[in-house]
Amino acid sequence: MNIEMIEAAADRLAGHARVTPLLSSPFLDEVAGRRVLVKPECLQHTGSFKFRGGWSAVSALPVAQRARGVIAFSSGNHAQGVARAAALHDAPAVIIMPSDAPRLKIANTRALGAEVVLYDRANEDRDALGARLAEERGLTLVKPFDEPQVIAGQGTCGLEIAAQAEQAGVTQADVLVPCGGGGLTSGVALALEDRAPGLRARPVEPEGFDDTARSLASGRIERNARLAGSICDAIITPSPGQITFPIMQRLCGPGLAVTEDEALRAMAAAFLRLKIVLEPGGAVALAAALYHPDRVSGEAVIAVASGGNVDPDLFRTALDRYGDQV
Amino acid sequence: MNIEMIEAAADRLAGHARVTPLLSSPFLDEVAGRRVLVKPECLQHTGSFKFRGGWSAVSALPVAQRARGVIAFSSGNHAQGVARAAALHDAPAVIIMPSDAPRLKIANTRALGAEVVLYDRANEDRDALGARLAEERGLTLVKPFDEPQVIAGQGTCGLEIAAQAEQAGVTQADVLVPCGGGGLTSGVALALEDRAPGLRARPVEPEGFDDTARSLASGRIERNARLAGSICDAIITPSPGQITFPIMQRLCGPGLAVTEDEALRAMAAAFLRLKIVLEPGGAVALAAALYHPDRVSGEAVIAVASGGNVDPDLFRTALDRYGDQV
Repeated sequence: MNIEMIEAAADRLAGHARVTPLLSSPFLDEVAGRRVLVKPECLQHTGSFKFRGGWSAVSALPVAQRARGVIAFSSGNHAQGVARAAALHDAPAVIIMPSDAPRLKIANTRALGAEVVLYDRANEDRDALGARLAEERGLTLVKPFDEPQVIAGQGTCGLEIAAQAEQAGVTQADVLVPCGGGGLTSGVALALEDRAPGLRARPVEPEGFDDTARSLASGRIERNARLAGSICDAIITPSPGQITFPIMQRLCGPGLAVTEDEALRAMAAAFLRLKIVLEPGGAVALAAALYHPDRVSGEAVIAVASGGNVDPDLFRTALDRYGDQV
Repeated sequence: MNIEMIEAAADRLAGHARVTPLLSSPFLDEVAGRRVLVKPECLQHTGSFKFRGGWSAVSALPVAQRARGVIAFSSGNHAQGVARAAALHDAPAVIIMPSDAPRLKIANTRALGAEVVLYDRANEDRDALGARLAEERGLTLVKPFDEPQVIAGQGTCGLEIAAQAEQAGVTQADVLVPCGGGGLTSGVALALEDRAPGLRARPVEPEGFDDTARSLASGRIERNARLAGSICDAIITPSPGQITFPIMQRLCGPGLAVTEDEALRAMAAAFLRLKIVLEPGGAVALAAALYHPDRVSGEAVIAVASGGNVDPDLFRTALDRYGDQV
């Protein structure tokens, strides 16, 4: 992984991925006690940064290989990002989803042009099913984070942050990034290393699922005790990746963790002050910026708001609890 | 009013107003039966396009006059736009608001740096109060729409639409604009006339408050029978302006009207598919694009989403009714 791969991904994404703006509000600055800049990747195609990595991976394939199609395992944002990127390349996409995934997500992934193959979590082996389909049809697996071209695609978000922060007059700041397997965090860190050395990427996770923060602290890959039971489902992974972790270890500052309630509160703040829709996992970095200012240093902080694919019910919960007092 | 004034406003706004992106979703395209491009002015500073006009008007004042301050009447988006623009120019701002305005809006306007003067709707003459304050302090009145520098500021939104639509390959389309007094609609129309003659601005209003559509149809300024009682409060005005109407008459296509329920449904669609927060008045153009495709012509339609300053309760109503079926 290097900056040239991210630059090449940026060339392939130009005109296809959206350049998301950098948002701010004096009300959020007041809460945080410093200037807060928010990178709203919820506005990216398919509602999360995952479209960047999906497009990068699909567009990097040799034409003949791409024409045979791609396959991905995901019940969430990665599924939609890969499905859309493949459809726009006229490439078939197979997405393997658990049969108990939310109906809306299954419907969306299908509507984005993918063939959805459902499996029974209890009785079927997902990996064996995927391997068989890939073998039979010559499909290329697009992994969600531990894959160089995916990391390169997510890194394009970091290139934009570097340029936009400079335009906003911010050259020294922590850049807080919602972190699952570390694809976005490591990609952003690599881009910042090259383009904005005064900006330091830091992963943010939900409390109880802070595998990356603990891995950074201990110096080796740590795992989460649990893999389910968080409303921040978009960023729950067993552990940081084999490729992403060394990058984060070399470049990132200490990890941060926030509670689920803080994520909901940040969703309400983003609704009220920025007019954007965030899912809990996409709101953890903003939550850290707003509600843990003591753990951040510098006169400004940049928070990536990584996704907005949230069910209306859960969004209502955030507004019910925190719509009047953010 | 002419394009040079809009270009000059764009120069003054550069680096201060946000260049909002142009959003889209294949799901919205499917609902509308054509390509839908959305200009999310809810992401503008203070949550609506009004910051453009506020900044344009305040920045156009001679320095000594600006230093004495500005005054505006508004309980809504214009108040916040002017307050913020004045504060960023270190100019005093007095905003005259009814004492029964929502507490949150009063608090926000104050927090944005303005002096809020409350008046009693029943027993006080707002205009006399404003005239006295302006006289005493040498304040300059910033009118909400029938003011050339305000129209010029709103027109910068049209300059961006022209450039972004061309980049997206759209050169022939209706541009639907939420319309109150016509400041945004006329400014956008002037910009499009110069930069994108294949794009035609059309005002969109709530049913029962379609003064501009009726004025365009009859050829003279018509008034609304009622001035209250709509959830689309941001775009309810008695009639189009003396300056804005002739511009709209010369340049705009026929007006459109949508129901309140269609506005709520468009808010839910924007939540689910674009991850942006709209207020009802800001959602009427998107509602027309999605739910009245027969009244629009062309292979693509552009909808301005003009503002997002909505109370959490009303937003919940939109999600309750239409969160599951947009």
